[in-house]
Amino acid sequence: MTKVNENFLKLQAGYLFPEIGRRVRSYQAKNPKAKIISLGIGDVTQPLAPAVIEAMKRAVNDMADSDSLHGYGPEQGYDFLINAIIENDFEARGVDLELGEIFISDGSKCDTANIQEIFGIDNIIAVTDPVYPVYVDSNVMAGRTGGAAGQGRYQGIVYMPCTAENNFVPELPKEQVDLIYLCFPNNPTGTVATKEILAKWVDYARDNNAIILFDAAYESFISEADIPHSIYEIDGAKDVAIEFRSFSKTAGFTGVRCAFTVVPNQLKAVTSDGRAVEVNPLWNRRHSTKFNGASYISQVGAAAIYSPEGRKQIKKITDIYMTNAALIRDSLTRLGYEVFGGVNAPYIWMKTPNGLSSWDFFDQLLTKANVVGTPGAGFGSAGEGYFRLTAFGQPANVKEALERIKAIS
Amino acid sequence: MTKVNENFLKLQAGYLFPEIGRRVRSYQAKNPKAKIISLGIGDVTQPLAPAVIEAMKRAVNDMADSDSLHGYGPEQGYDFLINAIIENDFEARGVDLELGEIFISDGSKCDTANIQEIFGIDNIIAVTDPVYPVYVDSNVMAGRTGGAAGQGRYQGIVYMPCTAENNFVPELPKEQVDLIYLCFPNNPTGTVATKEILAKWVDYARDNNAIILFDAAYESFISEADIPHSIYEIDGAKDVAIEFRSFSKTAGFTGVRCAFTVVPNQLKAVTSDGRAVEVNPLWNRRHSTKFNGASYISQVGAAAIYSPEGRKQIKKITDIYMTNAALIRDSLTRLGYEVFGGVNAPYIWMKTPNGLSSWDFFDQLLTKANVVGTPGAGFGSAGEGYFRLTAFGQPANVKEALERIKAIS
Repeated sequence: MTKVNENFLKLQAGYLFPEIGRRVRSYQAKNPKAKIISLGIGDVTQPLAPAVIEAMKRAVNDMADSDSLHGYGPEQGYDFLINAIIENDFEARGVDLELGEIFISDGSKCDTANIQEIFGIDNIIAVTDPVYPVYVDSNVMAGRTGGAAGQGRYQGIVYMPCTAENNFVPELPKEQVDLIYLCFPNNPTGTVATKEILAKWVDYARDNNAIILFDAAYESFISEADIPHSIYEIDGAKDVAIEFRSFSKTAGFTGVRCAFTVVPNQLKAVTSDGRAVEVNPLWNRRHSTKFNGASYISQVGAAAIYSPEGRKQIKKITDIYMTNAALIRDSLTRLGYEVFGGVNAPYIWMKTPNGLSSWDFFDQLLTKANVVGTPGAGFGSAGEGYFRLTAFGQPANVKEALERIKAIS
Repeated sequence: MTKVNENFLKLQAGYLFPEIGRRVRSYQAKNPKAKIISLGIGDVTQPLAPAVIEAMKRAVNDMADSDSLHGYGPEQGYDFLINAIIENDFEARGVDLELGEIFISDGSKCDTANIQEIFGIDNIIAVTDPVYPVYVDSNVMAGRTGGAAGQGRYQGIVYMPCTAENNFVPELPKEQVDLIYLCFPNNPTGTVATKEILAKWVDYARDNNAIILFDAAYESFISEADIPHSIYEIDGAKDVAIEFRSFSKTAGFTGVRCAFTVVPNQLKAVTSDGRAVEVNPLWNRRHSTKFNGASYISQVGAAAIYSPEGRKQIKKITDIYMTNAALIRDSLTRLGYEVFGGVNAPYIWMKTPNGLSSWDFFDQLLTKANVVGTPGAGFGSAGEGYFRLTAFGQPANVKEALERIKAIS
């Protein structure tokens, strides 16, 4: 008898975005003329930078000739991309990394979901609430949790609430935790961590032999000079942290697929009999056994954002999104809404008006303004009463959406 | 204390191809003038078909304009590709499939490694010996095996030897097994399964409530008319089989990354209390939680192979490789070697001469002929005494390699 992995049966209905899609399609079917504007899912709308397009065309051309054909590449990614990353994303900020510490992949969703596989099933995981659902669901599937415990929570996970009351910065857990997922700039709250806050977490991890899984997918949206882009800007972080980066939002690669994960050589975890084991070779083994490298074309495209033209073009696109973010912040504030984020992140996190539940506010915005956002409760129970808007829309659509919200406010 | 997944520590040294790479680099460093020809790793050498190149250029251009930009696509893949697959790969052979039964991915290595995640840890897996190492290693990492048990085998796995004595067709297991990995056309032996053989396996799986994980990555190399391309050509297979397909070898996509997995709606497994559960929604959940879709550009490229020009061009490339295969077969046979495969598969499996171990023959070919192949023992203990050559070389290199082998034979 083939047995299913019963941990999958613990998962609660529908991943957030499919549920949103279902409601939107249902509304659109009943109202075929409605011109729905989505500020919901965090997907890009600006075309790719010309430097990236040119580079990818060259890469496609390479594939048309056996002398320049690229078949299987290194599972860990091409050196030309890894070197560009090390130099531009890390050395420029005072962080030294070696080639073997960076693993190119096809997406941060995959990496943040897969990383738990190299750790024992008996580790206690800690996540913020609200949280990107993938961190939680991947651990549920692996069997690192009990069943659903109400309010979308699972037994055995330590949830760290992030609300307006604590400025969306989680407090250090009181119980022992082993793997801590942190995301800054944060999805969904749009908030950031200062160096002092990150240092507190690095110290905690060092003191408690825990590992921080640091999702920095949105670092390129940081506008304030003193906010760290990498957790490795904090002394001692290489001993306790894995960092995830993505080209999805930085360079509009949501449909192109390229990201990377940093696993420092000095990072260690232990066996059950207390022997220290280097984590980097474990991830390398996982990566090279269950993955076969990101597309050559995607990697060439990603490398192009580090050229002088590429950098300028990427900056211009980021500015468009962050102009949207500022507009959303300002307009909603003027309308009397309480808003957070949107300064160093493409996400605006708002309180729902009149104590509405976040799904009720979702339905109200969808049906009255034909605007789609993301209900905060979809990210965890502490997200109830909040709502996420993204800055990734076309500027004209963002303006139109804000006019419509004004009209119903 | 963060604990490692100790199952990783059971893995034996080095995945096969890194070890080959290490030996080749070491030899090349000592003999910088040696012009090494690789018939080792199964990587393509022919450029991509012009129809694929043109399609991918159009797809890159789509990304340069916000109206045609493709951001996040469906995790399961675009309908345009799934429909082309259903029509050309399955309907044309009398197999009906629905859209939701096909999952586009970035590679069969990933899919065949990840599929075990949706099944319980207590399933007994059966693999052929020799075998594609990924099937085994992914199960070791997941904890479905004991430690190494000698000869590269792991405790708890049922190994089914495939040797010249049984024509490389495994015998039905005598013990209860739950998940059976089969690969036809076979990597590494290059042998195929007739309809009668596959029907025997389907019957076995039905009688024993087992599931067959059928790797058909090399189906496009089948030249004989009566050999099945899909396990679903066998009656009743949809109740018991998952099939893996890839564009890597079919269309030279090893560097482009696109593949797919078929999970029939009617396929079921059970919970520990005996309740039947549909497998398709479990894979869908896994796929949409831990993966974010294959590159749009890769999917457009893959769809192009189903156009009339694409089909002709792909056929031409396949013919080049299969001409290599025939040449390798014939030349080695004339030299007195015992060879198998290479008729319906791009792999030639040969007996090592004079009872040499397969790694000794590897070293001999590398150092005396500067030709790289793959030692059979790297695929399992029953592969000892065999050696794999691939037909993916450039025709001129293949001829040269065969001349050199002749010279030392």
